[in-house]
Amino acid sequence: MNHKPKAIILLSGGLDSTTVLAIAKKDGFEPYALSFKYGQRHVVEIEAAKKVAEKMGVNGHKIAEIDLRIFGGSALTDEIDVPKDNLSENKAIPITYVPARNTIFLSFALAYAETLQAFDIFIGANAIDYSGYPDCRPEYIKAFENMANLATAASTEGKGQFKIHAPLIHMSKADIIKTGIALGVDYSITTSCYDPSPSPKPCGHCDSCLLRQKGFGENGLLDPLTQITIK
Amino acid sequence: MNHKPKAIILLSGGLDSTTVLAIAKKDGFEPYALSFKYGQRHVVEIEAAKKVAEKMGVNGHKIAEIDLRIFGGSALTDEIDVPKDNLSENKAIPITYVPARNTIFLSFALAYAETLQAFDIFIGANAIDYSGYPDCRPEYIKAFENMANLATAASTEGKGQFKIHAPLIHMSKADIIKTGIALGVDYSITTSCYDPSPSPKPCGHCDSCLLRQKGFGENGLLDPLTQITIK
Repeated sequence: MNHKPKAIILLSGGLDSTTVLAIAKKDGFEPYALSFKYGQRHVVEIEAAKKVAEKMGVNGHKIAEIDLRIFGGSALTDEIDVPKDNLSENKAIPITYVPARNTIFLSFALAYAETLQAFDIFIGANAIDYSGYPDCRPEYIKAFENMANLATAASTEGKGQFKIHAPLIHMSKADIIKTGIALGVDYSITTSCYDPSPSPKPCGHCDSCLLRQKGFGENGLLDPLTQITIK
Repeated sequence: MNHKPKAIILLSGGLDSTTVLAIAKKDGFEPYALSFKYGQRHVVEIEAAKKVAEKMGVNGHKIAEIDLRIFGGSALTDEIDVPKDNLSENKAIPITYVPARNTIFLSFALAYAETLQAFDIFIGANAIDYSGYPDCRPEYIKAFENMANLATAASTEGKGQFKIHAPLIHMSKADIIKTGIALGVDYSITTSCYDPSPSPKPCGHCDSCLLRQKGFGENGLLDPLTQITIK
């Protein structure tokens, strides 16, 4: 018997997390996907996550419902306008930052991992294009991993050590797309837009759309979703 | 202007977290309570939490709905029997352990704190009577605090440093009760039972009921809920 190790993949249905799923499979893990309905205005993500999970093949897919709107404080969950056509290059924390979101997502992934006896968690955190998000930095990921190994029955009973994998953390959007294409990812089923409402079509103007189009452009490709590139 | 600092109190409506709320108030914090509906079989907790929040006076009370049943793996959320009349004194992790529960609770508290610009979070974790729960140990609490200070916009922008207060961590149940009574806590409105279903009355036989009765007994008191003590 030579079982593959199980891994939890935080899967939003976006470009980054879909690439991470492809990387986890390439690295020999048996993937279990975890998605969230958290009151995001771009709930079309969940449909994309389901499509990605089905098309790429996962051994399980859980969708956790958590209502982060009870706290407020972000353009992604509140009635605050999502900024458009203003891709910030500085280090300020964007209004689309959701307080403690990655910490909450990773905590749920830890619960899922523990019940599956998995010790590997993959997250699409990226410190380059989203450098304004504090919970996308390597030192944060390491601190979460350290905490996770003290938090759980599985690790304290010596069954294994948790590892938080953030394979995109130092990659540019263009490199992420190049990696995904080499692994056969079909980006036409992913979604990245922060503000697709009311239509499921991407707005093409929010930070996330702009970064995505730029990434395809740098690979000399058209974004299959919008057929738009930004050089 | 001499505003009190705000603090988030994780409030289950049980004996421990109610005592923690009293301690936070005594320590000069302006309290905001956070409770969870997480699929627990003892959902009567929420009603107790509301009563406690109202009677003791909090500046806000959020109830987050998160369904931890999607992962399974605990007698507190699954159709697994809660153990009765068998108060374990050893270091084994009890079946009532919920995977990553305190990590999830503290993550939500962190989100709430960040939106309120609060930096203090209180949790009723206790390493003595619940020594089998890995996420009730001081080293875990410290690791979460360290991670929280790397996770958030508030701390990375230098507005403050998060502190996780676990004032009960080294106290016996008897000491907790003694402290609460000195602070005027009315324990008749709290609930501790893991398995009150179908009646709201405590079963009197689960670990939590047994510990509570023992704690009152060691203070020479009757538990106002059950009028039972265990010497």
